[in-house]
Amino acid sequence: MKDFMYFNPVRVHFGKNAMAALPEELEKFGKNVLLLYGGGSIKRTRLYDRILADLQAAGKTVFELPGVMPNPRTEKVYEGIEICRREKIDLLLAVGGGSTIDCAKAVAVGACTDRDFWQAFFKDWETAEDAIPLGVVLTLPATGSELDKSSVITNVATGEKNSYDSELTFPKFTILDPTLTYTLPKHQMVNGIVDTISHLYELYISPPDGECLTDELAEAALRTEIRAGRAAAADPEDYDARADLMWTSSFALCGMLNNGKETDWASHCIEHPISALYDVAHGAGLAVVHPAYLDYICPDALSRLRRLAVRVWGVDPAGRTDEEVAREGIRRTREFFRELGAPATLTELHVPEEAIDRIADLTDLGCFSYRQLTREDVVAILRTVL
Amino acid sequence: MKDFMYFNPVRVHFGKNAMAALPEELEKFGKNVLLLYGGGSIKRTRLYDRILADLQAAGKTVFELPGVMPNPRTEKVYEGIEICRREKIDLLLAVGGGSTIDCAKAVAVGACTDRDFWQAFFKDWETAEDAIPLGVVLTLPATGSELDKSSVITNVATGEKNSYDSELTFPKFTILDPTLTYTLPKHQMVNGIVDTISHLYELYISPPDGECLTDELAEAALRTEIRAGRAAAADPEDYDARADLMWTSSFALCGMLNNGKETDWASHCIEHPISALYDVAHGAGLAVVHPAYLDYICPDALSRLRRLAVRVWGVDPAGRTDEEVAREGIRRTREFFRELGAPATLTELHVPEEAIDRIADLTDLGCFSYRQLTREDVVAILRTVL
Repeated sequence: MKDFMYFNPVRVHFGKNAMAALPEELEKFGKNVLLLYGGGSIKRTRLYDRILADLQAAGKTVFELPGVMPNPRTEKVYEGIEICRREKIDLLLAVGGGSTIDCAKAVAVGACTDRDFWQAFFKDWETAEDAIPLGVVLTLPATGSELDKSSVITNVATGEKNSYDSELTFPKFTILDPTLTYTLPKHQMVNGIVDTISHLYELYISPPDGECLTDELAEAALRTEIRAGRAAAADPEDYDARADLMWTSSFALCGMLNNGKETDWASHCIEHPISALYDVAHGAGLAVVHPAYLDYICPDALSRLRRLAVRVWGVDPAGRTDEEVAREGIRRTREFFRELGAPATLTELHVPEEAIDRIADLTDLGCFSYRQLTREDVVAILRTVL
Repeated sequence: MKDFMYFNPVRVHFGKNAMAALPEELEKFGKNVLLLYGGGSIKRTRLYDRILADLQAAGKTVFELPGVMPNPRTEKVYEGIEICRREKIDLLLAVGGGSTIDCAKAVAVGACTDRDFWQAFFKDWETAEDAIPLGVVLTLPATGSELDKSSVITNVATGEKNSYDSELTFPKFTILDPTLTYTLPKHQMVNGIVDTISHLYELYISPPDGECLTDELAEAALRTEIRAGRAAAADPEDYDARADLMWTSSFALCGMLNNGKETDWASHCIEHPISALYDVAHGAGLAVVHPAYLDYICPDALSRLRRLAVRVWGVDPAGRTDEEVAREGIRRTREFFRELGAPATLTELHVPEEAIDRIADLTDLGCFSYRQLTREDVVAILRTVL
């Protein structure tokens, strides 16, 4: 087990009645609130009305930053920073999924520096000194951003999709009500499941390979996500399944599963330029990239992928070589994504073959564990899923 | 899954080099430090010298509260409170196991109230308004106190062993260095393992009985504790085993495994008067009480105990009734404790038969889940392990 530091101060309110915690949380912060949300689904579901009523009852002055889209962009962050400075915002309230939360985190630190936020934090990775407090109401379980300190922002002008970490951007509170996900379009639910499994793989499929608590916990989370994913696909209003999906995606990135592990974010690193260049949903991109990546590194990560197959996918190793077992686990991963309706090829993502070189150029090659990828490896991986 | 609130802001430094984090942590707090420790083993191992050197290098003025014994008592808490008030202590630094940490937590809140600490917090359960910050260097993995907000204190005069919870008593930092446990006497290691398994059981063996992430995580932690317990018993300097024991006992009580569960602390409630009246080590008491409790409630908790047997102890259910499977899991629990050298009877604990009535009188009967225990049930349970 590698040495580690673990710290996660997010207060989580979880369950059917989690929204009832919002008024008590609002009391802890100042008067001026910036409400961030996405494409307006929270208005259709009336969640917007409910939150606005709570904000008004708490005596808040509310400003809004609507229209935070998937793969949130620098432009939207600048817009939020501008409002925060002008209106002296005391609390950012992000209502939505990872994109809205990530945008809010970038606004939170960006509003407290004199420098350009992109250059300071997403290029120079300067340590933030201050941030506006952030609260979250989650509607789309996927990225885990509601329980972590990371933010991923896309700069369309440069084709970069970069991330920034600061303990100051841990949400002060996160409200997780699984019933809010009943009305999610299926493809969004599926992208969330793929993203969560991908996160769990990137933590789990990395050294050290010996037994340790963290690996057992990751296997537990993976089995839960697969079981609950199937159940929620069959019945979108299966509360326990929705609850497991929501809590597992948050737990996956709370930091607990990093403890003692090297981790391996190569799949995310390959996927980031794809969604930055083609505005592909992150989970859809991962459904294509991640199994292809695992097949490519299989000889290097053999014992770990064999263990994944046996413990998570229930592959019977009797009469099979280690490699056959390992590849069967990858095959079942791909099949599970397909069963849910996720894409399996770049063509399905509308990413043309000619794009592969550009994607490879933009891939950060520093996040590997079992095998150092080269630019040519990335090209080879992507060619397997044309 | 039940609704829940989860919050745990403890900063954990874990590993072979975890002690290197102490200087940076000390910088965050004021000048006057009260060092709390137990019977002096930290002097034999030279850990005391190392910590004192760090404190001096950080320019701290150090006061000491040595001699915090197992089942920490009100007297020691009063002594600590007195020092804190007189010397205007800025930081409590608890070096030891759960007893030292629990004593420090009671001092932390007790020093900040005008009322008698026992009456205010451990009898009236008043909400603490303030507390002196607490840091921990753990030497004995068992109680999980290093990662939770609970304190258990014994009042010898009344025979009570009561607990108190406050978010203000979460340690600000906890240093977990598994190599510090290499020199633990075996019976202390074993008590710690029993205590940890007991905590995991009390969280896991409770409704709801459906599938959920929390149960999968608890099973993962149980399998890890059993595996690592055997490995550390065979080789006390097996680093990975010691690391798993230390991290699993902390993880068990970090709150993650409460999420969505009713929990069932009946075994702890029966054991508390035993250790309060007879100064029995908590883990030793649990080794006797817990399997007896499970056998007693087996018909009420059948499906859950069957699942425990299959998923944690690897019992093959083929050709057995549910009850046979469930009882085999309990039998293996008892056998595992015995294999490690833990006691199995009240006689081995030097608790006489005549004490049973008094123990039953003092048992808090409100912590059950599957079956509401009566005083007579407690007597009956204890009679099975004379």
